[in-house]
Amino acid sequence: MNEARKRVVIIGGGFGGLYAAKGLGNHDVDVVLVDRKNHHTFQPLLYQVATAALSPGDIASPIRGILRGYKNIEVLLDAVVGFDLNERRVHLRDGADLSYDFLVVAAGATHSYFGHDQWEPFAPGLKSLEDATVIRRRVLLAFENAERTAAEGHDPGPLNFIVVGAGPTGVELAGALIEIARGVLAQDFRRIDPAQAHVILIEGGPRVLAAYPEDLSRSAAEQLGSLGVEVRTGAMVTSVEPGLVRVGEIEIPSAVTLWAAGVAASPLGKMLTPNTDRAGHVPVGPDLSLPNHPEVFVIGDLAAAKDSDGKLLPGLAAVAQQEGKATAKNIVRDLYGQPRKPFHYLDKGLLATIGRQAAVAKFGRIHLTGFIAWVAWLCVHLVLLIGFRNRVLVLVNWAWAYFAYQRGARLITDVEPIPQAQAAPAEEMKKAG
Amino acid sequence: MNEARKRVVIIGGGFGGLYAAKGLGNHDVDVVLVDRKNHHTFQPLLYQVATAALSPGDIASPIRGILRGYKNIEVLLDAVVGFDLNERRVHLRDGADLSYDFLVVAAGATHSYFGHDQWEPFAPGLKSLEDATVIRRRVLLAFENAERTAAEGHDPGPLNFIVVGAGPTGVELAGALIEIARGVLAQDFRRIDPAQAHVILIEGGPRVLAAYPEDLSRSAAEQLGSLGVEVRTGAMVTSVEPGLVRVGEIEIPSAVTLWAAGVAASPLGKMLTPNTDRAGHVPVGPDLSLPNHPEVFVIGDLAAAKDSDGKLLPGLAAVAQQEGKATAKNIVRDLYGQPRKPFHYLDKGLLATIGRQAAVAKFGRIHLTGFIAWVAWLCVHLVLLIGFRNRVLVLVNWAWAYFAYQRGARLITDVEPIPQAQAAPAEEMKKAG
Repeated sequence: MNEARKRVVIIGGGFGGLYAAKGLGNHDVDVVLVDRKNHHTFQPLLYQVATAALSPGDIASPIRGILRGYKNIEVLLDAVVGFDLNERRVHLRDGADLSYDFLVVAAGATHSYFGHDQWEPFAPGLKSLEDATVIRRRVLLAFENAERTAAEGHDPGPLNFIVVGAGPTGVELAGALIEIARGVLAQDFRRIDPAQAHVILIEGGPRVLAAYPEDLSRSAAEQLGSLGVEVRTGAMVTSVEPGLVRVGEIEIPSAVTLWAAGVAASPLGKMLTPNTDRAGHVPVGPDLSLPNHPEVFVIGDLAAAKDSDGKLLPGLAAVAQQEGKATAKNIVRDLYGQPRKPFHYLDKGLLATIGRQAAVAKFGRIHLTGFIAWVAWLCVHLVLLIGFRNRVLVLVNWAWAYFAYQRGARLITDVEPIPQAQAAPAEEMKKAG
Repeated sequence: MNEARKRVVIIGGGFGGLYAAKGLGNHDVDVVLVDRKNHHTFQPLLYQVATAALSPGDIASPIRGILRGYKNIEVLLDAVVGFDLNERRVHLRDGADLSYDFLVVAAGATHSYFGHDQWEPFAPGLKSLEDATVIRRRVLLAFENAERTAAEGHDPGPLNFIVVGAGPTGVELAGALIEIARGVLAQDFRRIDPAQAHVILIEGGPRVLAAYPEDLSRSAAEQLGSLGVEVRTGAMVTSVEPGLVRVGEIEIPSAVTLWAAGVAASPLGKMLTPNTDRAGHVPVGPDLSLPNHPEVFVIGDLAAAKDSDGKLLPGLAAVAQQEGKATAKNIVRDLYGQPRKPFHYLDKGLLATIGRQAAVAKFGRIHLTGFIAWVAWLCVHLVLLIGFRNRVLVLVNWAWAYFAYQRGARLITDVEPIPQAQAAPAEEMKKAG
């Protein structure tokens, strides 16, 4: 390696890290991208893997393959366990150190149970392909277990799917679950009627999609309702147990509980600075660098980056992408002795899909709902998907799912042992004594 | 349920069980198909999932979906733990019993380590989607670990992939592995050259593809050699250890060892009769029924069915398929009081693929090798694949893999912890002291 060349270390192969790397591709700098996974995951479509519409391979792409064309970029499969900001070194899990001239930390976020980590086994969240496969397995097994219980002559009890948290992920999961029950699986069982399944979306706040304008929240709640989802806002979950969710004093039996309520930034944030916010976000300057460390950038879901009007930027793929590109440009400016430019987020809008021909979208002042919002969502996500092959496959999968009311990826692959059908109380809801 | 109607219980949703069920579809009989998995796996293409050419979803299809159109068939996700042949009952894992008038046992086979089950963790076999995902992860991680070791300034040592057993699965795996190393991954790494990887195919017998005519064995060995696979016949593996395979006194360091050497029929066979053969196959009569139990049929890889000339039928998808169809017809004949017909296997030929444009095939007296055999293999497998959707997707995947020298399914998904790079001796081979 040319010793005079500067080295940029990028942590994370999500949207932020990947676009930072691409922006530095074929420039006069050595780039090392470190990720714990060998693949980039297209997170906006994870819920489609969790609900068996797409396969894991459809929404993931090997990072090496994406960056293959840039000879100045190398990819390392490893985990970061610490930093030495003064010595400019990154500590890796297997004991080795990486030195850097510039560091870009784009380690993302994970789910938060607000101090109730004991709920996690009973209410998995959705951040990785592994999470999505676990959820897919549990959802499909719930129907299988009910059918088996019925075949043995017992009452399988109510088949409730409870989604906690009505942000975009919760809304998308709830919509997809009702579609599976009412459409996809409708003809597949002989003893139970999947269409009798209940999907309940529980939100602590006053409305679904709190980050959206109120009229779109209202429309989303209406669209969910007309699909058959029961929406309960202002309902705080007080406990999640096997087969049960408590909302205040009310017990709701649950075949599958999913967690879409909280987000916590990667623990790497706290290793960079003690000044993270409550959710673990790292405060950054206008150029997305760490205070007192202009050579360290923090981007994507891990950063508490602010808009020009001082508002915290949301945890969106589009934000991470733009931050990655901007950071790469500022590093190149440093290399050529030019002044850095502050980051400005170009708002491309908000989009959340709810189900078949149901969505809400906001582009500037334009608010869309229903079919036209759904078409907009479809187009935007096809374009965003990284890699030609994935785009074609996803299109084939979607077309198939849409026209045939089929979901091809309905595989239960073992990792967890197959649970026995859960004993559920005969009444759907009862007050706790 | 109509009590007068007879009930057929089918164990297993592989080729045998599925074709037996389809043959009974919409007949005047109740059918229950029991499988531990919710999906049918197209086993002939499993090695393509193991080597990242196809995704699990491409070669698997939910059994419920396949049989959805037959209202007299129900599917149960459960495992069989025993039989009461006199009472005509099947014992299920969750404690329930299924009674039957006819029983079709098509439980298949698994790998055998010939009494060395302790080798399994270090040399996984390939029978299920889960196996294929484990192998894919290990193969991809071997390259990642070597790259990381090199990036840390150490010598990663030789990168050997050892396949034990040169039947069709072993030959296919070896050919696909060399293709990954020399073609697919060639541009992806900066520190190591994947093309320097060695693929070694070890066979205890005198030739590869022992079940094929000698000229095709010879051609297969030649085609493997020209692709770059090192073929060692007459070599008995004496021990498999972490990072090491022993052949007699010779130690071969191994980054990944795969087992394709032995097959053992499902343990359900021994629950049906004490008279299984050495590999656990159940002897059956000319109509594939169990001696003294004409209402019990055993088909597919579990059965020791014989050809009209007394030769044991091989464990092929085509054999299981034909046996399933024939069994369904005999059950229908019983229902209508007609005499059963003995099973005759219609030999459709033998096909094994070796790599890009490399294969061997035997159709009756016609022996094909190289490109034309490979095209025949491709056509046959596309037609055999069950389900329209899978066929289209597999075609897209294959076309992509072929023209772009890319493999889209190169995902490492965690289940096993990521192993550290294995310490390998500096010399590739050395005599044990």
